[in-house]
Amino acid sequence: MESASVDDHAAYIRSIVSLPTTSERVPLALALCRVTVAVVHSPVDLPLFPNSQMDGFAVRSSDLATGGTSLPIVGEVAARPGTPPPLEPGTTVRIMTGAVIPDGADAIVPVEDTTTVGDTVTIHRHRAVGEYVRERGSDVRTGEELLPAGLRLASRHLAVLAAAGLDSVDVRTRVRVAVITTGAELVVPGAPVELGQVYDSNAVALDAAVRASGGEVIFAAHNNNDDVSVLGAVMLDAADRADIILTSGGISMGDYEVVRDFLVTRDGRVGHIAMQPGGPQATGSIDGVPIIGFPGNPVSTQISFEVFVAPLLREAAGLPPARRSTRVLTSDVRSIAGKRQFLRGRTVEGGRVEMVAGPGSHLVASLAASDVLIDVPEGTTELKAGDTVETIEL
Amino acid sequence: MESASVDDHAAYIRSIVSLPTTSERVPLALALCRVTVAVVHSPVDLPLFPNSQMDGFAVRSSDLATGGTSLPIVGEVAARPGTPPPLEPGTTVRIMTGAVIPDGADAIVPVEDTTTVGDTVTIHRHRAVGEYVRERGSDVRTGEELLPAGLRLASRHLAVLAAAGLDSVDVRTRVRVAVITTGAELVVPGAPVELGQVYDSNAVALDAAVRASGGEVIFAAHNNNDDVSVLGAVMLDAADRADIILTSGGISMGDYEVVRDFLVTRDGRVGHIAMQPGGPQATGSIDGVPIIGFPGNPVSTQISFEVFVAPLLREAAGLPPARRSTRVLTSDVRSIAGKRQFLRGRTVEGGRVEMVAGPGSHLVASLAASDVLIDVPEGTTELKAGDTVETIEL
Repeated sequence: MESASVDDHAAYIRSIVSLPTTSERVPLALALCRVTVAVVHSPVDLPLFPNSQMDGFAVRSSDLATGGTSLPIVGEVAARPGTPPPLEPGTTVRIMTGAVIPDGADAIVPVEDTTTVGDTVTIHRHRAVGEYVRERGSDVRTGEELLPAGLRLASRHLAVLAAAGLDSVDVRTRVRVAVITTGAELVVPGAPVELGQVYDSNAVALDAAVRASGGEVIFAAHNNNDDVSVLGAVMLDAADRADIILTSGGISMGDYEVVRDFLVTRDGRVGHIAMQPGGPQATGSIDGVPIIGFPGNPVSTQISFEVFVAPLLREAAGLPPARRSTRVLTSDVRSIAGKRQFLRGRTVEGGRVEMVAGPGSHLVASLAASDVLIDVPEGTTELKAGDTVETIEL
Repeated sequence: MESASVDDHAAYIRSIVSLPTTSERVPLALALCRVTVAVVHSPVDLPLFPNSQMDGFAVRSSDLATGGTSLPIVGEVAARPGTPPPLEPGTTVRIMTGAVIPDGADAIVPVEDTTTVGDTVTIHRHRAVGEYVRERGSDVRTGEELLPAGLRLASRHLAVLAAAGLDSVDVRTRVRVAVITTGAELVVPGAPVELGQVYDSNAVALDAAVRASGGEVIFAAHNNNDDVSVLGAVMLDAADRADIILTSGGISMGDYEVVRDFLVTRDGRVGHIAMQPGGPQATGSIDGVPIIGFPGNPVSTQISFEVFVAPLLREAAGLPPARRSTRVLTSDVRSIAGKRQFLRGRTVEGGRVEMVAGPGSHLVASLAASDVLIDVPEGTTELKAGDTVETIEL
């Protein structure tokens, strides 16, 4: 893994991470944005029964052979439970939108095309068979596909499940992610700090980024102990519950690199990727659960997640990949030879992109002020204002 | 409101709906996708203290006036709490990424640019002042803007709040929506149905659509009583808690139209909009809370929500408006003169759009199979395959 390319490392991670294929049944109220595991077939015909498309009169179209027919109004059918009596020839009934079409009736005349005097309605012209009738099964028939497999459920999908009488749906289990941040210098936000301590932003960032990518963090821990066996116990605990373990920190060339020390004893790969930020990267596994180790610098952690893990989680959650687009630079940009740079950029007037601050992996405020990453290829060392670059939307 | 245009009705709704301007303080773990109410100023400098960008050696650059300088290694600074001793002239200390720069040191030499023998390190070339030093406040200074007002919080925004030591953030209160479905024919999904009954899909659809638009449904009720006073009591209850009340059903020209009967006694507006689906539309208020009444046909309800209410909720939630784009039709389309049609469309090969089934407002499965609405202007009655149309992404 010594200075492998970003694409190679991404491919390797893809090869060791197998996304869960399990499913769970959830009520419709909890199913928004979840992903169907299988085709959902309709258990019913929709509409369930022939019903009126309009407020008006139910007729036998053969009674209206000529225009200007008058018919006695012998009853009324509202959108209510119950079976209306059959419509006798030469008569009509008032009918409301959605009401059952009585046996014998084969067309609906909208109220606005009629004139009523007392109990008699005059219908101004002939009507075709089936006019303003919503036939049973005309939207979908029993056994037909209501929704495909692998669909991310939006409100209109939940609506059709409800309309077919279903109150729950089988969806993919969310990817269960464990997040372990490391570093003896880290303090929980809100607590006092002394010199040498910094606030842990990686736990918050990874938790939110996992959720935004459709997964869920089911285990979160901070390890500030240099003893590999302590980290090992935390890892075991995480592996017991998670589909994938993400760590931050502890994988570079320093003297206190506990994630590195843990992974190398277990045939993990700890090395350097030709990218900035995020050079140090690590992978491994415990009890068959993949471990993806990010460097601890906050910007490195966040960008490593976007580049290596978010695509897998988004795919599992039925989300589209992050949008890429080609933009025009507002200023010159330099890049390091042999490293793929992910620079922070902000969209300005005319859709062009300007750099936000420098490439430093500690510039969390600059990352927050960005809306795209500018993806500069390994071989590029210099870009000019007006050049086009590829960007990844954040 | 007799056959007002879609735009007029939308503007009227905008004029009677005032979105909440209240805020609440939420912990960062609950703040993803919420919207900031005010500029967040940094309570600290970031970085909090000058620290090393690399694993290497802290030096006084003046000691390296010439290349090939050897210095005694007199200590080590890790990324740990505590104040390191000042660096004496003519000496160096090992330093880890993120560790406090000792007083006196003004540059960091990366370990890869050095050779160490025993307790002596040889540094191969001169270093500039500040090299590989992350200066205090170089990312953001105390009092500077960390995040703007009105920002929808993503993981990178939560990360910078955490990095600055903040554990919570003031966000806009979510718009509180009440949903009241009406219709004596409606049955809850999962229950048995008899002839004349249909499953209520509007409650499920509106609940999910409100959430997808950044609001929350804090009150949901089904009214199947024709007595206006019963509906009035439900409305009062809803008004007590909600910023806006949405209803479905009961506003057309039939005989049992309880929402209409309620609104007309309160100076509400019940009428017809020049649109399909969704012709009947109503508005009103109770205790100052706006009531938006949609027709009961499921497709009409869902499209009315997207056209009239979703834009307001999305705006309040800091979400961008639904994407509109221009597409090429795959087949001829007819539309009704004088009505703006929102036809259901599906994106096919080459980004063209094909119609999904017909215009019927009961076709919930067809709506579920669509990914865009084709927005056909009032004045258009015929479109040909190959014509461009405006579409709204679902």
